[in-house]
Amino acid sequence: MPEPRKSRILCDVDFDRDGAQHGFLRLFHSSHASAYGFLPIPIVVIRNGEGPTALFVSGNHGDEYEGQVALANLVKRLTPEAIKGRVIILPTANFPAAMAGNRVSPIDNLNLNRIFPGDPDGSVTQQIAYFIATELIPRADLICDLHSGGSSLLYVPCVLTSQVPDRALYAKHMAALRAFGAPLAYVQGRAQGQGGNQTLGGYAETLGIPTLGSELGGGGCVTPAGLRIAERGVNNLLVHLGILPESERLEGEATEVFGLAGQDHFVYTPEAGVFEPLVELGDRVKAGQPAARIHFPETPWAPFVECTFANDGFVLCKRQPGRTVRGDCLFVLGGAFQE
Amino acid sequence: MPEPRKSRILCDVDFDRDGAQHGFLRLFHSSHASAYGFLPIPIVVIRNGEGPTALFVSGNHGDEYEGQVALANLVKRLTPEAIKGRVIILPTANFPAAMAGNRVSPIDNLNLNRIFPGDPDGSVTQQIAYFIATELIPRADLICDLHSGGSSLLYVPCVLTSQVPDRALYAKHMAALRAFGAPLAYVQGRAQGQGGNQTLGGYAETLGIPTLGSELGGGGCVTPAGLRIAERGVNNLLVHLGILPESERLEGEATEVFGLAGQDHFVYTPEAGVFEPLVELGDRVKAGQPAARIHFPETPWAPFVECTFANDGFVLCKRQPGRTVRGDCLFVLGGAFQE
Amino acid sequence: MPEPRKSRILCDVDFDRDGAQHGFLRLFHSSHASAYGFLPIPIVVIRNGEGPTALFVSGNHGDEYEGQVALANLVKRLTPEAIKGRVIILPTANFPAAMAGNRVSPIDNLNLNRIFPGDPDGSVTQQIAYFIATELIPRADLICDLHSGGSSLLYVPCVLTSQVPDRALYAKHMAALRAFGAPLAYVQGRAQGQGGNQTLGGYAETLGIPTLGSELGGGGCVTPAGLRIAERGVNNLLVHLGILPESERLEGEATEVFGLAGQDHFVYTPEAGVFEPLVELGDRVKAGQPAARIHFPETPWAPFVECTFANDGFVLCKRQPGRTVRGDCLFVLGGAFQE
Amino acid sequence: MPEPRKSRILCDVDFDRDGAQHGFLRLFHSSHASAYGFLPIPIVVIRNGEGPTALFVSGNHGDEYEGQVALANLVKRLTPEAIKGRVIILPTANFPAAMAGNRVSPIDNLNLNRIFPGDPDGSVTQQIAYFIATELIPRADLICDLHSGGSSLLYVPCVLTSQVPDRALYAKHMAALRAFGAPLAYVQGRAQGQGGNQTLGGYAETLGIPTLGSELGGGGCVTPAGLRIAERGVNNLLVHLGILPESERLEGEATEVFGLAGQDHFVYTPEAGVFEPLVELGDRVKAGQPAARIHFPETPWAPFVECTFANDGFVLCKRQPGRTVRGDCLFVLGGAFQE
Amino acid sequence: MPEPRKSRILCDVDFDRDGAQHGFLRLFHSSHASAYGFLPIPIVVIRNGEGPTALFVSGNHGDEYEGQVALANLVKRLTPEAIKGRVIILPTANFPAAMAGNRVSPIDNLNLNRIFPGDPDGSVTQQIAYFIATELIPRADLICDLHSGGSSLLYVPCVLTSQVPDRALYAKHMAALRAFGAPLAYVQGRAQGQGGNQTLGGYAETLGIPTLGSELGGGGCVTPAGLRIAERGVNNLLVHLGILPESERLEGEATEVFGLAGQDHFVYTPEAGVFEPLVELGDRVKAGQPAARIHFPETPWAPFVECTFANDGFVLCKRQPGRTVRGDCLFVLGGAFQE
Amino acid sequence: MPEPRKSRILCDVDFDRDGAQHGFLRLFHSSHASAYGFLPIPIVVIRNGEGPTALFVSGNHGDEYEGQVALANLVKRLTPEAIKGRVIILPTANFPAAMAGNRVSPIDNLNLNRIFPGDPDGSVTQQIAYFIATELIPRADLICDLHSGGSSLLYVPCVLTSQVPDRALYAKHMAALRAFGAPLAYVQGRAQGQGGNQTLGGYAETLGIPTLGSELGGGGCVTPAGLRIAERGVNNLLVHLGILPESERLEGEATEVFGLAGQDHFVYTPEAGVFEPLVELGDRVKAGQPAARIHFPETPWAPFVECTFANDGFVLCKRQPGRTVRGDCLFVLGGAFQE
Repeated sequence: MPEPRKSRILCDVDFDRDGAQHGFLRLFHSSHASAYGFLPIPIVVIRNGEGPTALFVSGNHGDEYEGQVALANLVKRLTPEAIKGRVIILPTANFPAAMAGNRVSPIDNLNLNRIFPGDPDGSVTQQIAYFIATELIPRADLICDLHSGGSSLLYVPCVLTSQVPDRALYAKHMAALRAFGAPLAYVQGRAQGQGGNQTLGGYAETLGIPTLGSELGGGGCVTPAGLRIAERGVNNLLVHLGILPESERLEGEATEVFGLAGQDHFVYTPEAGVFEPLVELGDRVKAGQPAARIHFPETPWAPFVECTFANDGFVLCKRQPGRTVRGDCLFVLGGAFQE
Repeated sequence: MPEPRKSRILCDVDFDRDGAQHGFLRLFHSSHASAYGFLPIPIVVIRNGEGPTALFVSGNHGDEYEGQVALANLVKRLTPEAIKGRVIILPTANFPAAMAGNRVSPIDNLNLNRIFPGDPDGSVTQQIAYFIATELIPRADLICDLHSGGSSLLYVPCVLTSQVPDRALYAKHMAALRAFGAPLAYVQGRAQGQGGNQTLGGYAETLGIPTLGSELGGGGCVTPAGLRIAERGVNNLLVHLGILPESERLEGEATEVFGLAGQDHFVYTPEAGVFEPLVELGDRVKAGQPAARIHFPETPWAPFVECTFANDGFVLCKRQPGRTVRGDCLFVLGGAFQE
Repeated sequence: MPEPRKSRILCDVDFDRDGAQHGFLRLFHSSHASAYGFLPIPIVVIRNGEGPTALFVSGNHGDEYEGQVALANLVKRLTPEAIKGRVIILPTANFPAAMAGNRVSPIDNLNLNRIFPGDPDGSVTQQIAYFIATELIPRADLICDLHSGGSSLLYVPCVLTSQVPDRALYAKHMAALRAFGAPLAYVQGRAQGQGGNQTLGGYAETLGIPTLGSELGGGGCVTPAGLRIAERGVNNLLVHLGILPESERLEGEATEVFGLAGQDHFVYTPEAGVFEPLVELGDRVKAGQPAARIHFPETPWAPFVECTFANDGFVLCKRQPGRTVRGDCLFVLGGAFQE
Repeated sequence: MPEPRKSRILCDVDFDRDGAQHGFLRLFHSSHASAYGFLPIPIVVIRNGEGPTALFVSGNHGDEYEGQVALANLVKRLTPEAIKGRVIILPTANFPAAMAGNRVSPIDNLNLNRIFPGDPDGSVTQQIAYFIATELIPRADLICDLHSGGSSLLYVPCVLTSQVPDRALYAKHMAALRAFGAPLAYVQGRAQGQGGNQTLGGYAETLGIPTLGSELGGGGCVTPAGLRIAERGVNNLLVHLGILPESERLEGEATEVFGLAGQDHFVYTPEAGVFEPLVELGDRVKAGQPAARIHFPETPWAPFVECTFANDGFVLCKRQPGRTVRGDCLFVLGGAFQE
Repeated sequence: MPEPRKSRILCDVDFDRDGAQHGFLRLFHSSHASAYGFLPIPIVVIRNGEGPTALFVSGNHGDEYEGQVALANLVKRLTPEAIKGRVIILPTANFPAAMAGNRVSPIDNLNLNRIFPGDPDGSVTQQIAYFIATELIPRADLICDLHSGGSSLLYVPCVLTSQVPDRALYAKHMAALRAFGAPLAYVQGRAQGQGGNQTLGGYAETLGIPTLGSELGGGGCVTPAGLRIAERGVNNLLVHLGILPESERLEGEATEVFGLAGQDHFVYTPEAGVFEPLVELGDRVKAGQPAARIHFPETPWAPFVECTFANDGFVLCKRQPGRTVRGDCLFVLGGAFQE
Repeated sequence: MPEPRKSRILCDVDFDRDGAQHGFLRLFHSSHASAYGFLPIPIVVIRNGEGPTALFVSGNHGDEYEGQVALANLVKRLTPEAIKGRVIILPTANFPAAMAGNRVSPIDNLNLNRIFPGDPDGSVTQQIAYFIATELIPRADLICDLHSGGSSLLYVPCVLTSQVPDRALYAKHMAALRAFGAPLAYVQGRAQGQGGNQTLGGYAETLGIPTLGSELGGGGCVTPAGLRIAERGVNNLLVHLGILPESERLEGEATEVFGLAGQDHFVYTPEAGVFEPLVELGDRVKAGQPAARIHFPETPWAPFVECTFANDGFVLCKRQPGRTVRGDCLFVLGGAFQE
């Protein structure tokens, strides 16, 4: 068996040193404009002796901001003296995407969360995935990858994890999920089609490392409500792991938990046009209920097309942009959760 | 004095014929992909004898959808028999922009609402402006140009007009504004910097033709609330003009009216970063109150920058996208309205 | 009245000197890649004493090649000794478009044949139009602007002119048309929508200078048949003007002449899809006859749409590319010609 | 040996169910504009009991249309009752390319027919190739991949297959080729340089599954002649397999068969310029005969360059666009066929 | 005569107020990403009572940096107390170009120094030109527009002005030129082809306002030598005008003055290839001397092309990038200067 | 162990035949514009009987020209009669990049010198790398890969090699380095971050084949000084190998040798802005000495940022473009060389 290849990224910080360090992952990207330059991906590690390691990631998608803001605030707030163990913070995981306010990298057009475990010899985003997969994930006792809906989706702010077959791991997932303290959560089976084991969390599961995600809003903006949930959740996970003392726990709300069932809980655009939603985020809907109309203002005398929900459920997520094409996701429903 | 130049656009409909006609403005655009092709901009005219003319426009900005949906619905609902006078409907004024879901035209990169009265020999958007300026606006007794916030702004849904020096015109503006029946309205002095006489409405004013606008939501999506306000308002303007009978009036809400004072009611981004709003749409704020924080997740250890409101006011409008650069508008405040 | 502005283009050749000269129009275009560079537009003038001036232009659209090849061959064949008078040859009028094999300029995205008389202070294509309009056209006794169908259209090879109100000019048009010796010709009224007085020929007419055009094939390629017609026609026009002696006339075919009536002789795409032509170039068709089907392979179970001819006529021109959108021109019919 | 990876594409149809089903291959492509959206690649399966399976593919290159139209027509015509066995139809294999009218995908710039057998974890086109390679090809008894010349080439309409070493497979190839009923055919050795085992057909051969191709015209347009050959051929292959009864066979022409010898039957552009073909499609040419001239209209006084055929042969294919650069293919010759 | 139109740009500073003010020109640019945003073009005015006004401009071309650095340093160094009169500083005149490090604006692709006097209703760069032309230039007693060679040219650092017909103005030009204290200068007749009256300086001359330019290096970089010349020159011009006291004068070198004769002092690329210069900046050359070779590494067995100087002269300027196309400027020679 | 895959590139020349041959590597690239075309990468082989093989490569980065010119000159100068052994010359290794004057390929955006050993089934640049890695490198006794600084870097012209662990190979490196005869050289440990074993030279080392590189100038231009060093070095390597006789040796200068230590000899941009270098190429600097200032002309009143050298050293290399972002390399220092 060949030795695993090593990431080509240089890392400014030493994960095993006590204290607060910040610096960059230096991803050398030899381009026309900068032959010997690197992409400076900020990384922070705060360590105080032995103890568990929490890994916080945001900017996995560059246009999801609550996590980026919450982690930038965490970096400035957390001191080594206040903790026990280690906190690793990567606020702009897909750095070129985050600088561009884009879901995917403007350099290689890749979605970081669909290419795990990456490739140390590949393109820029593949190299980031590989570094996270081989240098960060294996160091963690708990991972929290903070997402929002991004430019094309709006979510009711929530925390999420997945219903893995390994019962011990699953128990860790559910304990962390509840510790986060968000008002809403969903638990997904790894439904085929939305990333599977090519996501950060999906890959971490294959290593048996517990991982939480979040969907803190969306529409490509920061919502104050989502940000508050993110900041509380990040704090509470540190308490949950014992990195922060119990006294630091912030009181959250009781978490209502939904299941994410399968493709029949998704509604997709049947024809290209303008999307009019007929329900709101947070509504409870019934199978057969009208979900959306697709309008054709370029042929205004033509009738609109209406589409319906195939299942009962709770409207977790809806599409943001008005213009839509066949195959776009319009709604995601949460279903009943069976532990 | 030279004779005014005539638009080169062919028009399928005859504005002076009774009945319901629909067809296209044929804007010939000789491109590599289509040497003799035209851009098919849909237009509808519904006429029943003598009477006033209402002109409804949407899709002036292609990513503002409530108006496009409301007018597509109006086209299918309105019959010549039901009306007296004439209704002209142009649902996708900047047709290439509307098809692309873009504020500006993907063909010439022009913002239709910043180039009035256009140019018959100019680029595609300039030709559209010229047709509207010379063939549609002069035929109207009242114009309603339906906007929303578009991809970069979110508005509290409202109707708006401007406080013109001509008292008779101004009276018509205010009467129509109240007839629309929106819960909120604002009245602008033609503040320098946001379009002035280069907008559709600004140009119409120079001809003495009363014009209403609207801001029905934004973020590049359709909101059911904004759509309901648009549909009621369009209907009520037809009643207001006597084109529809009084019995068709839809009960609206009392309209709260704000003034739009000047540049000191706008908040702009001081440094490039991620925008965290500290107030919500519809809040009432005080001069000196913190408005927003700009975060720098690419340098997460650097402090954020906070900016404040320079005036008291009502939060009419806020920026949507999280990533922002110096000079972007973050908030617009409504102020006290003095009739 | 202000003095007319002078073109900023430098011209290597002296139009009043005897002999054969070739060189460039030097259109200075100060770009990031070349601050002081010029676009080198080749021009040739061949002169032998007093006599009429013929102006030959090709590459007005960069993807129309028969004219470019015929004029490049003419440049190498014609000597001052062989002629009487003057021949001016501009084989790549829209030089950046010709180098790119594109209808329009890749620099400013302008169609040279839709912006006459141009602007000496404008963008690159506007400057070319202005030079032709003010320096070349006024020197000519007869202009021949050689076109083909370009990338989006296929024509039966033909020569063409327009039915101008000025009877003397019209007589010159028809005499030159017949002298050209093409098997087919059409005579257009300046139908609104396809360029009007913004074309090279349309502008020349306003100065009273006779102008022929051609459509020598298309599809963005060179056809040997069209090339032969072009070479014979160019030669015969020189004989017609007396620049070449009568002995040089090449026997052509009898020219069948059609009229180009108006918009009802054009067929346009009703819906976006794949275009299947149901008739061939050169067919004679009847009003009501099926012209084309539009297929939707992305929804293969949906029925196709069929469209028909609105008039009797001769199929002069058809669209080349299979993918088409609403408003593309599919066919142009020639109609009966009334002198 | 590791288990083969499974395609991530969801498929709406059940290949083992009787009846006519249509739906989509759902290729999830998480982009900035559509985080959870899929590309809807239409697929149709029609089955009636046990029997052979025919797989028809078009839109492998998006700008080749005769096959797309023929298969869209087949979808609407074929009923389960009329057949015995199974027909699988994929009319727009490279869906994003077909929607764009482009040879290659606008998403990842890949040529589907140069990347077989694809990659289930790769980019969009790699995922399509993998689905076809692992889910469609293995189910087929005969594959017909319908091509035309595309935007850059024009072919005499023909059917084609390859002279594989396996004699049993080769016999099936030739039987199907003759059953197709096209007037012209060619049989290729897998000449290095034009796709080899990275094409759909080349890959199918490695699995021992007989495959026909076609070249039904080109220039990026639909030709009625090519379409008729495609529709007859598709029908006759179904008869050949016994899926349709013998009574449905359409009388074709006797098929003249050429061989495709090797690189010396290709003519390539020696210098960048404008391509003038000196022979026509369907001509028979001799070694040493002039094939083409390359003209330089940007330096019209410079001599043209002429290139010749290196072999005798039949002109099967020629380049369409006039502008050409060194290395472009100008002609392909068919040679004598030795069975 | 119509009233001149007013710039739509808002200006943060009051030119008539004493003290040091800095702020922005707010050029409202309503785009998809920022509907109400402005481009923040920094401007500084420092005033102390009555006295002459100096206007310093840099970033007219965005990739010319010595001026931008020198003026940024001047802004931080100059206090109202130290001066008499007024200094107006515009360090990034074409702000979008300067931010992009580009000669021309990435927004409208315009070269600010080729479109004076601009247009208040035009595109972004046209609005900048108009503001400078109507609000800044008329306020100045002396203008200094600091250029370098930019990305495509390298200059021997020098100062320059033009030999205007108006003797009084010309005398001011020469006095300022010598006061600047650069080691080298050139004086241009307004040679047709390089900007003429469409440049900032060319336009200022039409108003009779003395203007200096500079060429401080180039290649898109900052050279310490050019920066020192710029800083000294800017300082010395303030002394020359009496804005700074005589005691502040920095000793410069004796200025050697060349004339810039005309097009025959420019050498242009004859064929596309790789440019090898045969002389160095600062060399004195003779007519007929080899200037450059153009190599063709893509056809390495083909001979190179050599071109020569048409005149004697001093090598003021040479092209930077190796790849070149016909019409690029390779060298500019300075000639003898006749006062 | 599977058989190594074979390159799909066709090669016009026979490496084992005596005489001078030139032709092309034919890399078939089936694109929308050219379905059967190839990229014509010129290759020259000159052979005279048995003897050593020298492989010369340039255009590995398309914007580095001294090598391209030197090798194009070598191709025209070298005859089989004059040599003993074999010389293989590849002047435009990354042909699409060389034609575009770009560091990386405009087709797949890949840097040829970061993807060795490539992939025969991959994209265009991956196929080039694979051909060089499998067909050219293994044939060579000595490789010389001629680089310059490219568009973003300027180097003191020098030759370079690496300090490999294999002492015999290292001895060959140093002998060739000194034979080259450049005034300056550096010897690198394979510092992590600048290409490692993904470069041509790094890959060749893994095969034990001695390889020299060069850095002959930069800034995207040709410098006469660098060209002279290249031409002498190439010649002297042929003498060194015995391919040319000793009598052909050109006297060079004594070579001063530096070591390239590690990341602490690189200076990187700390903040985006305009780069002012404070030292010149060839300077000797001390640890702590100011290296550069970063200016912010868009906020001219803000202070600049200064950065310093972390080590003593010799300024081998500096950044060319003024605009810079965090992570760009500003300087590379040579250090003491320990053999």
